[in-house]
Amino acid sequence: MWLRRGRGVVAGALGARGRPRGEGTAPCSGRAAPQDLALPNGSWSRAMRELYERLLRGTADGSWRRVPSYRNVLDHFPAVGQGRGTRLFMRNLDTEGAGFEYVTFLHRAGGRALCLCQTGPYLEGPPGFTHGGAIASIIDTTLGTCALDAAGVVMTAQLSIDFLAPVPLGSVVLLDGRVDRREGRKLFLSCEVRGAEGDPLHAKATGLFIQLDTSKSPRPACNTR
Amino acid sequence: MWLRRGRGVVAGALGARGRPRGEGTAPCSGRAAPQDLALPNGSWSRAMRELYERLLRGTADGSWRRVPSYRNVLDHFPAVGQGRGTRLFMRNLDTEGAGFEYVTFLHRAGGRALCLCQTGPYLEGPPGFTHGGAIASIIDTTLGTCALDAAGVVMTAQLSIDFLAPVPLGSVVLLDGRVDRREGRKLFLSCEVRGAEGDPLHAKATGLFIQLDTSKSPRPACNTR
Repeated sequence: MWLRRGRGVVAGALGARGRPRGEGTAPCSGRAAPQDLALPNGSWSRAMRELYERLLRGTADGSWRRVPSYRNVLDHFPAVGQGRGTRLFMRNLDTEGAGFEYVTFLHRAGGRALCLCQTGPYLEGPPGFTHGGAIASIIDTTLGTCALDAAGVVMTAQLSIDFLAPVPLGSVVLLDGRVDRREGRKLFLSCEVRGAEGDPLHAKATGLFIQLDTSKSPRPACNTR
Repeated sequence: MWLRRGRGVVAGALGARGRPRGEGTAPCSGRAAPQDLALPNGSWSRAMRELYERLLRGTADGSWRRVPSYRNVLDHFPAVGQGRGTRLFMRNLDTEGAGFEYVTFLHRAGGRALCLCQTGPYLEGPPGFTHGGAIASIIDTTLGTCALDAAGVVMTAQLSIDFLAPVPLGSVVLLDGRVDRREGRKLFLSCEVRGAEGDPLHAKATGLFIQLDTSKSPRPACNTR
Protein backbone atom coordinates (compact mmCIF):
# COMPACT_ATOMS: atom_id res chain seq x y z
CA MET A 1 0.00 0.00 0.00
CA TRP A 2 1.16 3.63 0.07
CA LEU A 3 4.47 4.23 1.64
CA ARG A 4 6.63 7.29 1.47
CA ARG A 5 10.11 8.32 2.45
CA GLY A 6 9.88 10.15 5.74
CA ARG A 7 11.71 10.70 8.97
CA GLY A 8 12.38 7.03 9.18
CA VAL A 9 10.60 5.13 6.45
CA VAL A 10 7.61 2.99 7.27
CA ALA A 11 8.41 -0.16 9.13
CA GLY A 12 6.71 -1.10 12.35
CA ALA A 13 4.81 -3.47 15.73
CA LEU A 14 3.86 -3.12 19.33
CA GLY A 15 4.02 -6.28 21.39
CA ALA A 16 1.83 -7.94 24.56
CA ARG A 17 4.41 -9.32 26.99
CA GLY A 18 6.51 -7.32 29.40
CA ARG A 19 5.85 -3.68 30.18
CA PRO A 20 3.49 -1.49 28.20
CA ARG A 21 5.23 0.85 25.86
CA GLY A 22 5.16 4.55 26.54
CA GLU A 23 5.94 7.53 24.40
CA GLY A 24 9.06 9.56 24.95
CA THR A 25 8.98 13.31 25.48
CA ALA A 26 10.97 15.67 23.34
CA PRO A 27 13.15 17.92 25.52
CA CYS A 28 12.01 21.57 25.60
CA SER A 29 8.92 20.77 23.54
CA GLY A 30 5.27 20.48 24.37
CA ARG A 31 4.82 17.52 22.10
CA ALA A 32 5.71 13.96 23.05
CA ALA A 33 8.39 12.60 20.76
CA PRO A 34 7.45 9.30 19.23
CA GLN A 35 9.22 6.28 20.65
CA ASP A 36 11.42 4.36 18.24
CA LEU A 37 10.20 0.78 18.62
CA ALA A 38 12.84 -0.82 16.42
CA LEU A 39 15.27 -1.10 19.33
CA PRO A 40 15.99 -3.99 21.70
CA ASN A 41 13.65 -4.48 24.66
CA GLY A 42 13.19 -7.07 27.41
CA SER A 43 11.03 -9.30 25.24
CA TRP A 44 13.76 -9.96 22.70
CA SER A 45 15.13 -13.48 22.83
CA ARG A 46 18.87 -14.19 22.89
CA ALA A 47 18.74 -15.20 19.23
CA MET A 48 17.04 -11.92 18.35
CA ARG A 49 19.59 -9.84 20.27
CA GLU A 50 22.58 -11.68 18.83
CA LEU A 51 21.43 -11.30 15.25
CA TYR A 52 20.55 -7.65 15.89
CA GLU A 53 24.07 -6.98 17.17
CA ARG A 54 25.51 -8.68 14.10
CA LEU A 55 23.38 -6.57 11.76
CA LEU A 56 24.19 -3.42 13.73
CA ARG A 57 27.90 -4.00 13.17
CA GLY A 58 27.15 -3.65 9.46
CA THR A 59 26.13 -0.05 10.07
CA ALA A 60 29.53 0.96 11.48
CA ASP A 61 31.04 1.70 8.06
CA GLY A 62 27.82 3.10 6.64
CA SER A 63 27.07 0.08 4.43
CA TRP A 64 23.76 -0.39 6.20
CA ARG A 65 21.47 1.83 8.22
CA ARG A 66 18.89 0.90 10.83
CA VAL A 67 15.35 2.12 10.15
CA PRO A 68 13.44 3.59 13.12
CA SER A 69 9.82 2.55 13.54
CA TYR A 70 6.92 4.25 15.30
CA ARG A 71 3.52 3.25 16.57
CA ASN A 72 1.64 5.90 14.68
CA VAL A 73 1.79 5.92 10.91
CA LEU A 74 1.93 9.70 10.71
CA ASP A 75 5.09 9.76 12.78
CA HIS A 76 6.68 8.35 9.63
CA PHE A 77 5.15 11.15 7.56
CA PRO A 78 5.88 14.39 9.40
CA ALA A 79 5.00 16.42 6.33
CA VAL A 80 1.49 14.96 6.26
CA GLY A 81 0.46 15.72 9.82
CA GLN A 82 0.56 14.58 13.41
CA GLY A 83 -0.77 11.29 14.71
CA ARG A 84 -4.48 10.78 15.19
CA GLY A 85 -6.12 7.93 17.13
CA THR A 86 -4.89 5.36 14.68
CA ARG A 87 -2.00 2.91 14.91
CA LEU A 88 0.29 1.28 12.43
CA PHE A 89 -1.00 -2.28 12.03
CA MET A 90 2.42 -3.75 12.67
CA ARG A 91 2.80 -1.83 15.98
CA ASN A 92 -0.74 -1.91 17.31
CA LEU A 93 -0.32 -3.88 20.55
CA ASP A 94 0.48 -2.20 23.86
CA THR A 95 2.94 -4.59 25.44
CA GLU A 96 6.42 -5.54 24.34
CA GLY A 97 6.88 -8.93 22.79
CA ALA A 98 3.25 -9.90 22.24
CA GLY A 99 3.11 -9.12 18.55
CA PHE A 100 5.68 -8.23 15.94
CA GLU A 101 9.11 -7.30 17.29
CA TYR A 102 11.12 -6.18 14.31
CA VAL A 103 13.83 -3.95 13.00
CA THR A 104 14.77 -3.23 9.41
CA PHE A 105 18.16 -2.39 7.93
CA LEU A 106 18.58 -0.80 4.51
CA HIS A 107 21.66 -1.12 2.35
CA ARG A 108 23.45 2.03 1.30
CA ALA A 109 23.41 0.99 -2.35
CA GLY A 110 19.59 0.94 -2.26
CA GLY A 111 17.14 -1.75 -3.25
CA ARG A 112 17.89 -4.12 -0.39
CA ALA A 113 16.31 -4.53 3.05
CA LEU A 114 16.99 -7.00 5.85
CA CYS A 115 14.25 -7.31 8.45
CA LEU A 116 14.83 -9.15 11.71
CA CYS A 117 11.54 -10.25 13.28
CA GLN A 118 10.41 -12.15 16.38
CA THR A 119 6.81 -13.36 16.27
CA GLY A 120 5.02 -13.04 19.60
CA PRO A 121 2.28 -15.13 21.22
CA TYR A 122 -0.52 -12.85 19.97
CA LEU A 123 0.23 -13.69 16.35
CA GLU A 124 -1.08 -17.24 16.51
CA GLY A 125 -2.70 -19.02 13.62
CA PRO A 126 -2.46 -22.79 13.83
CA PRO A 127 -1.84 -23.84 17.45
CA GLY A 128 1.76 -22.98 18.30
CA PHE A 129 2.52 -21.35 14.95
CA THR A 130 2.52 -17.87 13.47
CA HIS A 131 -0.56 -16.94 11.41
CA GLY A 132 -0.05 -16.93 7.66
CA GLY A 133 -1.45 -13.39 7.57
CA ALA A 134 1.22 -12.26 10.05
CA ILE A 135 3.92 -13.72 7.79
CA ALA A 136 2.34 -11.94 4.83
CA SER A 137 2.27 -8.70 6.84
CA ILE A 138 5.97 -8.68 7.70
CA ILE A 139 6.80 -9.59 4.09
CA ASP A 140 4.67 -6.68 2.82
CA THR A 141 6.35 -4.37 5.32
CA THR A 142 9.86 -5.47 4.33
CA LEU A 143 9.23 -5.21 0.60
CA GLY A 144 7.41 -1.89 1.03
CA THR A 145 10.33 -0.46 3.02
CA CYS A 146 12.72 -1.63 0.33
CA ALA A 147 10.59 -0.18 -2.49
CA LEU A 148 10.06 3.20 -0.87
CA ASP A 149 13.77 3.49 -0.20
CA ALA A 150 14.30 2.97 -3.93
CA ALA A 151 11.42 4.99 -5.33
CA GLY A 152 9.68 7.21 -2.77
CA VAL A 153 5.90 6.95 -2.55
CA VAL A 154 4.87 3.44 -3.58
CA MET A 155 1.86 1.16 -3.42
CA THR A 156 1.67 -2.62 -3.23
CA ALA A 157 0.02 -3.91 -6.38
CA GLN A 158 0.74 -7.61 -6.13
CA LEU A 159 2.05 -9.98 -3.49
CA SER A 160 2.64 -13.68 -3.99
CA ILE A 161 3.85 -15.94 -1.19
CA ASP A 162 4.93 -19.58 -1.03
CA PHE A 163 4.65 -20.87 2.53
CA LEU A 164 7.30 -23.58 2.79
CA ALA A 165 7.77 -24.25 6.51
CA PRO A 166 5.60 -22.99 9.38
CA VAL A 167 7.06 -20.44 11.81
CA PRO A 168 6.70 -21.48 15.47
CA LEU A 169 5.50 -18.69 17.77
CA GLY A 170 8.46 -17.00 19.39
CA SER A 171 10.75 -17.73 16.46
CA VAL A 172 13.25 -15.26 15.10
CA VAL A 173 13.24 -14.95 11.33
CA LEU A 174 15.30 -12.88 8.94
CA LEU A 175 13.66 -11.45 5.84
CA ASP A 176 15.89 -10.58 2.91
CA GLY A 177 14.06 -8.33 0.47
CA ARG A 178 15.38 -6.72 -2.69
CA VAL A 179 14.36 -4.85 -5.80
CA ASP A 180 15.05 -7.25 -8.66
CA ARG A 181 14.22 -4.83 -11.48
CA ARG A 182 12.37 -1.65 -12.44
CA GLU A 183 10.22 -1.00 -15.48
CA GLY A 184 9.14 2.63 -15.46
CA ARG A 185 7.03 3.08 -12.32
CA LYS A 186 6.89 -0.67 -11.64
CA LEU A 187 9.26 -2.19 -9.09
CA PHE A 188 9.58 -5.97 -9.01
CA LEU A 189 10.80 -7.30 -5.68
CA SER A 190 11.46 -10.63 -4.03
CA CYS A 191 11.94 -11.81 -0.49
CA GLU A 192 13.05 -14.87 1.43
CA VAL A 193 12.06 -15.58 5.02
CA ARG A 194 14.59 -17.78 6.80
CA GLY A 195 15.35 -18.92 10.33
CA ALA A 196 17.88 -16.85 12.29
CA GLU A 197 20.73 -19.18 11.31
CA GLY A 198 19.72 -19.39 7.66
CA ASP A 199 17.49 -22.44 7.92
CA PRO A 200 14.81 -23.38 7.35
CA LEU A 201 13.52 -21.42 4.39
CA HIS A 202 10.09 -20.55 5.79
CA ALA A 203 8.69 -18.62 2.84
CA LYS A 204 9.51 -17.08 -0.52
CA ALA A 205 7.65 -14.13 -1.95
CA THR A 206 7.52 -11.78 -4.89
CA GLY A 207 5.95 -8.35 -4.92
CA LEU A 208 5.07 -5.69 -7.44
CA PHE A 209 5.03 -2.12 -6.17
CA ILE A 210 3.97 0.95 -8.12
CA GLN A 211 5.68 4.30 -7.75
CA LEU A 212 2.97 6.92 -7.28
CA ASP A 213 2.66 10.46 -8.51
CA THR A 214 2.42 12.19 -5.15
CA SER A 215 0.60 15.17 -6.60
CA LYS A 216 -2.29 12.81 -7.45
CA SER A 217 -2.17 10.58 -4.36
CA PRO A 218 -5.70 10.25 -2.89
CA ARG A 219 -6.06 11.19 0.76
CA PRO A 220 -9.66 10.59 1.92
CA ALA A 221 -10.59 11.35 5.50
CA CYS A 222 -10.38 8.43 7.91
CA ASN A 223 -13.79 6.80 7.89
CA THR A 224 -13.90 4.90 11.17
CA ARG A 225 -17.64 4.58 11.56
CA MET B 1 -1.38 -22.45 7.91
CA TRP B 2 -2.92 -25.33 9.89
CA LEU B 3 -6.59 -25.15 10.44
CA ARG B 4 -8.93 -27.87 11.57
CA ARG B 5 -12.63 -28.41 11.89
CA GLY B 6 -13.57 -27.76 15.49
CA ARG B 7 -16.31 -26.35 17.63
CA GLY B 8 -16.61 -23.45 15.32
CA VAL B 9 -13.91 -23.48 12.67
CA VAL B 10 -11.08 -20.99 12.84
CA ALA B 11 -12.05 -17.47 11.97
CA GLY B 12 -11.03 -14.53 14.15
CA ALA B 13 -10.14 -10.25 15.70
CA LEU B 14 -10.32 -8.22 18.82
CA GLY B 15 -10.82 -4.52 18.27
CA ALA B 16 -9.45 -1.04 20.15
CA ARG B 17 -12.47 1.26 20.30
CA GLY B 18 -15.39 0.98 22.69
CA ARG B 19 -15.36 -1.28 25.74
CA PRO B 20 -12.78 -3.99 26.37
CA ARG B 21 -14.03 -7.46 25.65
CA GLY B 22 -14.51 -9.89 28.48
CA GLU B 23 -14.91 -13.61 28.54
CA GLY B 24 -18.27 -15.18 29.29
CA THR B 25 -18.69 -17.72 32.08
CA ALA B 26 -20.25 -21.09 31.48
CA PRO B 27 -23.16 -21.70 33.91
CA CYS B 28 -22.42 -24.33 36.59
CA SER B 29 -18.82 -24.70 35.41
CA GLY B 30 -15.53 -23.55 36.83
CA ARG B 31 -14.21 -22.65 33.41
CA ALA B 32 -15.02 -19.46 31.62
CA ALA B 33 -16.77 -20.12 28.33
CA PRO B 34 -15.07 -18.42 25.43
CA GLN B 35 -16.85 -15.38 24.08
CA ASP B 36 -18.03 -15.63 20.49
CA LEU B 37 -16.60 -12.49 18.89
CA ALA B 38 -18.31 -12.90 15.52
CA LEU B 39 -21.43 -11.11 16.76
CA PRO B 40 -22.51 -7.46 16.46
CA ASN B 41 -21.09 -5.00 18.99
CA GLY B 42 -21.19 -1.25 19.49
CA SER B 43 -18.26 -0.63 17.16
CA TRP B 44 -20.04 -1.98 14.11
CA SER B 45 -21.02 0.67 11.62
CA ARG B 46 -24.51 0.87 10.15
CA ALA B 47 -23.23 -0.63 6.88
CA MET B 48 -21.68 -3.54 8.79
CA ARG B 49 -24.89 -4.22 10.72
CA GLU B 50 -27.12 -4.02 7.67
CA LEU B 51 -25.02 -6.41 5.65
CA TYR B 52 -24.76 -8.74 8.64
CA GLU B 53 -28.54 -8.83 8.96
CA ARG B 54 -28.84 -9.57 5.26
CA LEU B 55 -26.37 -12.44 5.50
CA LEU B 56 -28.04 -13.73 8.64
CA ARG B 57 -31.35 -14.04 6.80
CA GLY B 58 -29.60 -16.54 4.53
CA THR B 59 -29.18 -18.84 7.53
CA ALA B 60 -32.94 -19.10 8.17
CA ASP B 61 -33.45 -21.98 5.74
CA GLY B 62 -30.12 -23.61 6.52
CA SER B 63 -28.45 -22.56 3.26
CA TRP B 64 -25.76 -20.74 5.19
CA ARG B 65 -24.40 -20.93 8.71
CA ARG B 66 -22.61 -18.33 10.76
CA VAL B 67 -19.17 -19.33 12.07
CA PRO B 68 -18.38 -18.43 15.70
CA SER B 69 -14.94 -16.99 16.41
CA TYR B 70 -12.88 -16.91 19.59
CA ARG B 71 -9.92 -14.97 20.89
CA ASN B 72 -7.86 -18.01 21.72
CA VAL B 73 -6.90 -20.38 18.95
CA LEU B 74 -7.38 -23.47 21.11
CA ASP B 75 -11.01 -22.56 21.74
CA HIS B 76 -11.43 -23.57 18.12
CA PHE B 77 -9.69 -26.88 18.78
CA PRO B 78 -11.26 -28.32 21.94
CA ALA B 79 -9.74 -31.72 21.22
CA VAL B 80 -6.23 -30.27 21.30
CA GLY B 81 -6.36 -28.52 24.66
CA GLN B 82 -7.39 -25.40 26.53
CA GLY B 83 -6.13 -21.93 25.81
CA ARG B 84 -2.70 -20.80 26.93
CA GLY B 85 -1.40 -17.24 27.01
CA THR B 86 -1.58 -16.90 23.28
CA ARG B 87 -4.13 -15.16 21.08
CA LEU B 88 -5.43 -15.67 17.61
CA PHE B 89 -3.71 -13.03 15.46
CA MET B 90 -7.01 -11.86 14.01
CA ARG B 91 -8.54 -11.32 17.50
CA ASN B 92 -5.53 -10.06 19.45
CA LEU B 93 -6.67 -6.56 20.44
CA ASP B 94 -8.58 -5.89 23.67
CA THR B 95 -11.13 -3.32 22.60
CA GLU B 96 -14.01 -3.63 20.21
CA GLY B 97 -13.63 -2.02 16.82
CA ALA B 98 -9.92 -1.23 16.88
CA GLY B 99 -8.80 -4.11 14.73
CA PHE B 100 -10.58 -6.69 12.64
CA GLU B 101 -14.32 -6.94 13.20
CA TYR B 102 -15.49 -9.87 11.13
CA VAL B 103 -17.92 -12.70 10.80
CA THR B 104 -17.84 -15.59 8.37
CA PHE B 105 -20.73 -17.50 6.83
CA LEU B 106 -20.29 -20.92 5.21
CA HIS B 107 -22.57 -22.35 2.55
CA ARG B 108 -24.29 -25.64 3.25
CA ALA B 109 -23.08 -27.11 -0.03
CA GLY B 110 -19.46 -26.60 1.08
CA GLY B 111 -16.57 -24.88 -0.59
CA ARG B 112 -17.86 -21.33 -0.21
CA ALA B 113 -17.33 -18.70 2.49
CA LEU B 114 -18.53 -15.12 2.79
CA CYS B 115 -16.64 -12.96 5.28
CA LEU B 116 -17.95 -9.57 6.34
CA CYS B 117 -15.17 -7.40 7.74
CA GLN B 118 -14.79 -3.88 9.15
CA THR B 119 -11.21 -2.63 9.36
CA GLY B 120 -10.52 -0.61 12.50
CA PRO B 121 -8.15 2.31 13.16
CA TYR B 122 -5.38 0.05 14.49
CA LEU B 123 -4.93 -1.63 11.12
CA GLU B 124 -3.38 1.36 9.41
CA GLY B 125 -0.80 1.10 6.67
CA PRO B 126 -0.70 4.14 4.40
CA PRO B 127 -2.23 7.15 6.20
CA GLY B 128 -6.00 6.61 6.31
CA PHE B 129 -5.91 3.19 4.67
CA THR B 130 -5.84 -0.42 5.76
CA HIS B 131 -2.41 -2.10 5.74
CA GLY B 132 -1.81 -4.52 2.87
CA GLY B 133 -0.82 -7.16 5.42
CA ALA B 134 -4.20 -6.77 7.14
CA ILE B 135 -5.95 -7.33 3.82
CA ALA B 136 -3.78 -10.39 3.24
CA SER B 137 -4.64 -11.64 6.73
CA ILE B 138 -8.41 -11.50 6.30
CA ILE B 139 -8.06 -13.14 2.87
CA ASP B 140 -5.95 -15.95 4.38
CA THR B 141 -8.52 -16.37 7.15
CA THR B 142 -11.46 -16.50 4.72
CA LEU B 143 -9.81 -18.97 2.37
CA GLY B 144 -8.57 -21.07 5.28
CA THR B 145 -12.05 -21.25 6.77
CA CYS B 146 -13.43 -22.27 3.39
CA ALA B 147 -10.75 -24.92 2.87
CA LEU B 148 -11.06 -26.48 6.28
CA ASP B 149 -14.81 -26.67 5.88
CA ALA B 150 -14.18 -28.64 2.69
CA ALA B 151 -11.24 -30.79 3.77
CA GLY B 152 -10.58 -30.73 7.52
CA VAL B 153 -7.02 -29.98 8.61
CA VAL B 154 -5.37 -27.79 5.98
CA MET B 155 -2.33 -25.60 5.57
CA THR B 156 -1.79 -22.53 3.38
CA ALA B 157 0.83 -23.36 0.79
CA GLN B 158 0.46 -20.40 -1.56
CA LEU B 159 -1.28 -17.06 -1.49
CA SER B 160 -1.31 -14.55 -4.35
CA ILE B 161 -3.05 -11.20 -4.06
CA ASP B 162 -3.74 -8.39 -6.53
CA PHE B 163 -4.39 -5.14 -4.67
CA LEU B 164 -6.69 -3.15 -6.93
CA ALA B 165 -8.15 -0.35 -4.79
CA PRO B 166 -7.05 0.68 -1.29
CA VAL B 167 -9.42 0.05 1.64
CA PRO B 168 -10.02 3.19 3.75
CA LEU B 169 -9.83 2.59 7.51
CA GLY B 170 -13.31 1.95 8.87
CA SER B 171 -14.55 0.47 5.62
CA VAL B 172 -16.80 -2.56 5.45
CA VAL B 173 -15.72 -5.14 2.91
CA LEU B 174 -17.20 -8.46 1.86
CA LEU B 175 -14.89 -11.33 0.98
CA ASP B 176 -16.25 -14.06 -1.25
CA GLY B 177 -14.04 -17.14 -1.09
CA ARG B 178 -14.54 -20.47 -2.76
CA VAL B 179 -12.87 -23.77 -3.56
CA ASP B 180 -12.44 -23.78 -7.34
CA ARG B 181 -11.08 -27.31 -7.62
CA ARG B 182 -9.38 -30.17 -5.80
CA GLU B 183 -6.52 -32.34 -6.98
CA GLY B 184 -5.88 -35.02 -4.39
CA ARG B 185 -4.85 -33.21 -1.22
CA LYS B 186 -4.51 -29.87 -3.02
CA LEU B 187 -7.33 -27.35 -2.80
CA PHE B 188 -7.27 -24.40 -5.19
CA LEU B 189 -9.25 -21.42 -3.95
CA SER B 190 -10.02 -17.89 -5.02
CA CYS B 191 -11.37 -14.81 -3.33
CA GLU B 192 -12.68 -11.36 -4.17
CA VAL B 193 -12.70 -8.46 -1.72
CA ARG B 194 -15.40 -5.91 -2.53
CA GLY B 195 -17.03 -2.92 -0.89
CA ALA B 196 -20.21 -3.57 1.08
CA GLU B 197 -22.39 -2.68 -1.91
CA GLY B 198 -20.34 -4.67 -4.41
CA ASP B 199 -17.99 -1.91 -5.47
CA PRO B 200 -15.17 -1.26 -5.69
CA LEU B 201 -13.29 -4.50 -6.23
CA HIS B 202 -10.53 -3.92 -3.69
CA ALA B 203 -8.55 -7.11 -4.21
CA LYS B 204 -8.50 -10.48 -5.93
CA ALA B 205 -6.62 -13.48 -4.60
CA THR B 206 -5.89 -17.11 -5.23
CA GLY B 207 -4.75 -19.63 -2.65
CA LEU B 208 -3.46 -23.18 -2.57
CA PHE B 209 -4.18 -25.14 0.60
CA ILE B 210 -2.92 -28.62 1.38
CA GLN B 211 -5.02 -31.15 3.25
CA LEU B 212 -2.86 -32.62 6.02
CA ASP B 213 -2.60 -36.09 7.41
CA THR B 214 -3.53 -35.30 11.00
CA SER B 215 -1.68 -38.34 12.35
CA LYS B 216 1.56 -36.76 11.06
CA SER B 217 0.79 -33.11 11.84
CA PRO B 218 3.74 -31.54 13.70
CA ARG B 219 2.92 -29.92 17.02
CA PRO B 220 6.07 -28.35 18.53
CA ALA B 221 5.84 -26.63 21.89
CA CYS B 222 5.26 -22.89 21.80
CA ASN B 223 8.71 -21.29 21.77
CA THR B 224 8.06 -17.78 23.07
CA ARG B 225 11.58 -16.94 24.25
